Amino acid sequence: MADIARLAGVSTATVSRALNNSPLVNAETRGRILELAASLKYSINIGAQNLRLKQNRTIGVLIPYDRKTHLRLTDPFLLAMLGSVADALTEQGFDMLFSRLPTDQLGEAAATPFDTGRVGGIILVGQWGRHQELNELAARKVPVVVWGAHLPQQLYCCVGSDNVGGGMLATEHLIAQGRRRIAFFGDIDLPEPAQRYRGYCAALAKHGIAVDPALQVSSPFLPSGGSEAVEAMQARGVDYDAVFACSDLLAMTAIDSLRAHGRRVPGDVAVVGYDDIEQSAYFHPRLTTVRQPIGAAGSALVASLLALIDGKPAPSVELPTELVVRASAGEDQSS
Amino acid sequence: MADIARLAGVSTATVSRALNNSPLVNAETRGRILELAASLKYSINIGAQNLRLKQNRTIGVLIPYDRKTHLRLTDPFLLAMLGSVADALTEQGFDMLFSRLPTDQLGEAAATPFDTGRVGGIILVGQWGRHQELNELAARKVPVVVWGAHLPQQLYCCVGSDNVGGGMLATEHLIAQGRRRIAFFGDIDLPEPAQRYRGYCAALAKHGIAVDPALQVSSPFLPSGGSEAVEAMQARGVDYDAVFACSDLLAMTAIDSLRAHGRRVPGDVAVVGYDDIEQSAYFHPRLTTVRQPIGAAGSALVASLLALIDGKPAPSVELPTELVVRASAGEDQSS
Repeated sequence: MADIARLAGVSTATVSRALNNSPLVNAETRGRILELAASLKYSINIGAQNLRLKQNRTIGVLIPYDRKTHLRLTDPFLLAMLGSVADALTEQGFDMLFSRLPTDQLGEAAATPFDTGRVGGIILVGQWGRHQELNELAARKVPVVVWGAHLPQQLYCCVGSDNVGGGMLATEHLIAQGRRRIAFFGDIDLPEPAQRYRGYCAALAKHGIAVDPALQVSSPFLPSGGSEAVEAMQARGVDYDAVFACSDLLAMTAIDSLRAHGRRVPGDVAVVGYDDIEQSAYFHPRLTTVRQPIGAAGSALVASLLALIDGKPAPSVELPTELVVRASAGEDQSS
Repeated sequence: MADIARLAGVSTATVSRALNNSPLVNAETRGRILELAASLKYSINIGAQNLRLKQNRTIGVLIPYDRKTHLRLTDPFLLAMLGSVADALTEQGFDMLFSRLPTDQLGEAAATPFDTGRVGGIILVGQWGRHQELNELAARKVPVVVWGAHLPQQLYCCVGSDNVGGGMLATEHLIAQGRRRIAFFGDIDLPEPAQRYRGYCAALAKHGIAVDPALQVSSPFLPSGGSEAVEAMQARGVDYDAVFACSDLLAMTAIDSLRAHGRRVPGDVAVVGYDDIEQSAYFHPRLTTVRQPIGAAGSALVASLLALIDGKPAPSVELPTELVVRASAGEDQSS
């Protein structure tokens, strides 16, 4: 009530009278006060007060979509990340304002929920090739934390996993299993797959195996990606005895497609995925994969963002990756 | 600017001068105007205006969690539903305020985002045994649409699939495959599994097969559910030649566990799931399942809610279920 009085330039007694419909308050003033009371229910309680106390209890979470490919939100890794971030926010007592944007609008439009005071900060899942725009957001102090790859000249806080290391782990494991013709499924125009490919090339080089561009397929992170990659390899007529796929989704759909072609996994083709989504543990054959700590990722993104909002330093975080050996490319032949 | 002038009880010229720091405006008035401008940036733009125009472009989405079991948001069906609702809201130009609540706080607390004007309405995924509380929300005109089972005396708008019909489809298919000892994995204390169980019992009765309670396991919708159910059956020493599982997650984890026990699927045990999440199509063996139209579910929930918000009638919607025959319980023995 004091807020309404102050903002309307009247006494609290007048506000009280207006709210009680007293005839002592003239119609114009009463109208102003009632409208203020109605509209400030929101801004005083949540908007202005939160901004003042830096206690906006809502965080924006943005998963962009590529107009060309990614319209539907069905990627199990993205969904698992969304679940992980939601869990971490719930644990900290925050709500999540979730929205999607086409990737070509990433940049200023991504900051709108913050600029309008609806959220205290923004978590963005993926860089989507908009490194420069994200730098600009950070430069003008929009509290934003991005899940993705660490890149040179990165002004924004980035939480991601060790993609180069992960690519090496996967490839060295396949080499240790005696595989030499290792296909790589992943879109190397995107930062994370590009780094995994660097790890893949480094592991091959270390073991004196030449990198063969015919073994790389630029698969999008889509359910159709794995089978399309297998078909592409088939069409090229290139021989291969292993696949390193840049997501578990790609690995699983590739295995399904290899099986349809009568190729045994891991007998004929060993397959290593990336992510370690929950389904990998009960897929058949159980999936050997490079584990990104999805549960820890949500907590790390939220912790970094809350630090940023508090005005504390929030350096980028690189979470470790580890190889999870299961049947699809392991010595475990129980499949 | 006109809004600020009106609410502050001054002319727009005064507001303009105050915002330009003109010495013609006294300090008290300038202070009020600046604070109004700052706080109303939000309420005028989004809160009050939206409420007035019934155009709040944010919808609350709530997935509760059971304190005993469901803390982490990892269930692939719930995640797929979340993705579907998010996609439908994005298509309609709405943002999504996502939050979680323990099931025992469902009821009044679920309405808070609406009561505080933050959202125009609420989509709740699952009933979580809080039928009465949801009726109370509907009775006091909170715009809420619930994904779940149709129940007697239901005041709230409910969108769900035909669970009884789905249970019959699954069970009749297994009977048609010559199976007679059909286990049922699902928690029949929850409305949806309870209806699927009714369909299961009805199909058995139709074919003169007695319902055997020893074949029912009250599995929670958790990744551990399928393997725990298989272990429970093992411990009971009950013979069975088929499983109807109340979710694809339960079906997949049950298959993984059956395989570990050396039982072939579908040879020894045919398995039918429920949901038809994307992974079912490339799981091995590809999963026979009762399809809930997850994509259509998001659109239906959003359409019903927008109708409610518009003051139009929003009758409950029962989406059809259909059987998707694949290898895990079909004649397709290519697995």
